[in-house]
Amino acid sequence: RQPLLLVAGPCVLESEAQALSHARRVKELAARHGLPVIFKASFDKANRSSVASFRGVGLEAGLAIFEAVKRETGLACLTDVHEPWQAEPCGKVVDVLQVPAFLCRQTDLVMACARHGRAVNVKKGQFLAPREMRHAVRKCREAGNPNVFLTERGACFGYGNLVVDMRGLAQLRELGVPVCFDATHSVQLPGAGGDVTGGERQYVAPLARAAAAAGIDALFMEVHEDPATAKSDGPNSLDFAQADRVLADVLAIRRALGQR
Amino acid sequence: RQPLLLVAGPCVLESEAQALSHARRVKELAARHGLPVIFKASFDKANRSSVASFRGVGLEAGLAIFEAVKRETGLACLTDVHEPWQAEPCGKVVDVLQVPAFLCRQTDLVMACARHGRAVNVKKGQFLAPREMRHAVRKCREAGNPNVFLTERGACFGYGNLVVDMRGLAQLRELGVPVCFDATHSVQLPGAGGDVTGGERQYVAPLARAAAAAGIDALFMEVHEDPATAKSDGPNSLDFAQADRVLADVLAIRRALGQR
Amino acid sequence: RQPLLLVAGPCVLESEAQALSHARRVKELAARHGLPVIFKASFDKANRSSVASFRGVGLEAGLAIFEAVKRETGLACLTDVHEPWQAEPCGKVVDVLQVPAFLCRQTDLVMACARHGRAVNVKKGQFLAPREMRHAVRKCREAGNPNVFLTERGACFGYGNLVVDMRGLAQLRELGVPVCFDATHSVQLPGAGGDVTGGERQYVAPLARAAAAAGIDALFMEVHEDPATAKSDGPNSLDFAQADRVLADVLAIRRALGQR
Amino acid sequence: RQPLLLVAGPCVLESEAQALSHARRVKELAARHGLPVIFKASFDKANRSSVASFRGVGLEAGLAIFEAVKRETGLACLTDVHEPWQAEPCGKVVDVLQVPAFLCRQTDLVMACARHGRAVNVKKGQFLAPREMRHAVRKCREAGNPNVFLTERGACFGYGNLVVDMRGLAQLRELGVPVCFDATHSVQLPGAGGDVTGGERQYVAPLARAAAAAGIDALFMEVHEDPATAKSDGPNSLDFAQADRVLADVLAIRRALGQR
Repeated sequence: RQPLLLVAGPCVLESEAQALSHARRVKELAARHGLPVIFKASFDKANRSSVASFRGVGLEAGLAIFEAVKRETGLACLTDVHEPWQAEPCGKVVDVLQVPAFLCRQTDLVMACARHGRAVNVKKGQFLAPREMRHAVRKCREAGNPNVFLTERGACFGYGNLVVDMRGLAQLRELGVPVCFDATHSVQLPGAGGDVTGGERQYVAPLARAAAAAGIDALFMEVHEDPATAKSDGPNSLDFAQADRVLADVLAIRRALGQR
Repeated sequence: RQPLLLVAGPCVLESEAQALSHARRVKELAARHGLPVIFKASFDKANRSSVASFRGVGLEAGLAIFEAVKRETGLACLTDVHEPWQAEPCGKVVDVLQVPAFLCRQTDLVMACARHGRAVNVKKGQFLAPREMRHAVRKCREAGNPNVFLTERGACFGYGNLVVDMRGLAQLRELGVPVCFDATHSVQLPGAGGDVTGGERQYVAPLARAAAAAGIDALFMEVHEDPATAKSDGPNSLDFAQADRVLADVLAIRRALGQR
Repeated sequence: RQPLLLVAGPCVLESEAQALSHARRVKELAARHGLPVIFKASFDKANRSSVASFRGVGLEAGLAIFEAVKRETGLACLTDVHEPWQAEPCGKVVDVLQVPAFLCRQTDLVMACARHGRAVNVKKGQFLAPREMRHAVRKCREAGNPNVFLTERGACFGYGNLVVDMRGLAQLRELGVPVCFDATHSVQLPGAGGDVTGGERQYVAPLARAAAAAGIDALFMEVHEDPATAKSDGPNSLDFAQADRVLADVLAIRRALGQR
Repeated sequence: RQPLLLVAGPCVLESEAQALSHARRVKELAARHGLPVIFKASFDKANRSSVASFRGVGLEAGLAIFEAVKRETGLACLTDVHEPWQAEPCGKVVDVLQVPAFLCRQTDLVMACARHGRAVNVKKGQFLAPREMRHAVRKCREAGNPNVFLTERGACFGYGNLVVDMRGLAQLRELGVPVCFDATHSVQLPGAGGDVTGGERQYVAPLARAAAAAGIDALFMEVHEDPATAKSDGPNSLDFAQADRVLADVLAIRRALGQR
């Protein structure tokens, strides 16, 4: 069996210095636990609630930062792509192209990522039953790329709340692809923070442990050196000490179940 | 008070002949009830569940068809836009640019439509509380276009089901914009049709009546001369006789409430 | 077709004077609109959130009050029953025995009400699909009483919120029984009021209009001379002027649809 | 820290022989894993969907069976109580009185169980936010019995489906009481089985593991020697071999987290 894959990083690229500093700590975190790791960050927050919120450094500057991260740390990188034309330039630099949850039904985007990414991570839409993700997997395969994994990040539960259905992790795995659990976006409270998305950081740990016990192949967590000052998703991000404790518990659970 | 605006047409453009034939019948339908009307159709179904489903005629052919519709019938036209770059060419031909529900949080798309459309219709995401749509309205205004309306098309209710929250129509109106009710997409059953989206046509009429009674400014319905052979959304589309009866009831309700 | 049946009254019996005063106004309200009417009130709020909340006058005192109401006003009366043994004494006084929504699956209670009531109103559980109410209807019939109607009062929508699915009114009617819409409990926000249930009175009117347009046989509303001082369910109760306006709109809609 | 408490047994008492046979196997199961255990069974299924379904042996015969179980096996017993008057006779025989989920808001029932039970287990209503269960705890304490624990068994998720919100386990624990996870009722599909409640037994194991990892004090599972012939809840019950494997994993997870 494969060891757990860690996907971690700040929500958004704020600067090269910030990215490098975070990437080095992500690398240390993974090394401490003996895990393969991918550094994640967004160059553009294309679906912020409010037009006034920080969007990110943009595509060109973002790719330059990812090149620096790869050169300085050797880490594989993942970023999310919002329009089909972005897949080609992103695919030249980063290793995994990610389709955002709201966009998981956009056929052209999924297929463009499949054509230009080494691997594709499709986040499950908050509006979709787990088994419906079979279509996203099929779209990637039709585009010639079988190297796809799926990420759970919560399902709509009334207004302004998400619930993680642990049955869904098993249902996603039945689609024949690795399954990742996004522990930090799953605790978002959309709309609860006024003009920004709220979050309940205190539930990242129990949800990550629960998902590990239910069965996952990868764990996705947004980490920030100082979540209180993060330019996006602070309320649901962990600091590195918190991420370290979550990982320790997750790995203890996996070992108890005969996994790595 | 304004009369009800009717937005009607087939789900997808299948050919020029089909579009013209449907547009003429949509025009007749509106004239029979004395309503202002916009012809709606999609040039591309960019988020079909299955990669094997019919996508549409494409942007270029689609715009040529809309030009023919406008020339032959004089109808105003609406189409949905899936990527920001499409807003400019579409805005040169059609009168209303529509942001699909899954894409209602994509800032660049909303703003591109606002910049290039005479009016913008933003569909409320199935994953959003009604009041969260204030951000979409604000994004349009920031882009310089106050001519925006919002469309309700159901909210996620567990897996594979949508529910229309009639309170939401009032909440959308409190945002200070006209509110449209999409009676045919609201009866979709996502995933219930195997590899296509299912639908319960029999609930279009009661939901349209209910929404009219709760309070709306526009009514959106997909109509098809033969829903059984429609290339998209057949299970939730109405034929013209059904649409006529729905409209008659909706208008009787509006008159009873002192509206037109 | 039958005229609309009005079911109205205060949430809870507070005293004989309060009951008589409210019953007279309920009678006037119905007479003004030419409607058959049933006076509703509870002798016991058996499922208050908090143990500290007012429970009501109790069974014995409550039945004495209902006798006074019937004698003084001639109104038919409805009350809710919480345990099977209460059905017999209640059935000797009131005309309709009501099964509360949380208790709609309790076989003995449903059947006891059927055996001892002239008619039975089973409220649909917030946790049940409309069609599942067929079992409650069948239980009443098995107990020998086909005189049953069903009441919609909202379905669970995440935590602390209810949504009215207007499709459900049609689905309940397909069970072959009259269908009532409870417009005031449908706007409750369970848990939103701290230790009491909150409510959004402003949505009673649009929901009542919507339900009337979708199709109902009876309308249930809690009315209070002064909702702000009501001992239960004040936040979602209407005063008599508000109830009058809701009824006027509801009846205008029904007439527009060829109903009474 | 306390060891995990196991609550296990068949859904319904079918006969003394069946109860004794199941109780002995439950005792063995717990002993094999070194766990304290309570034998659970119902004397009456008071809320079966269909009036035609098996109800159980009844109160009197049921209590005689529990006496036999206690005498023959020494096990502590738990049963669910449906009306307040049943609390006293049940409390004379069984050790834990359980309030069913649909009835968790019935004040008299909760308080009667508190007065007559050594301990009370209140199941969280499918319609309630976890934190709302504070009222049930307070009602027990007001009745003089602080020995109460709460059980999660899923929350309404649209129609005909339940979802377990793992955040809720932490929220229930914050109320200061032990928290139990009911792994078998949580996989029910209400209404999916035609006239009986359906269930997805295959998700008992991942949900039980997930709940153990999130954090629980007790685990509730319905076990049957032959679920296919069980007179109630067969589709979601485990056989003893399955229950044994679930427990082994659950306990491995607990040990990995420093628990017993």
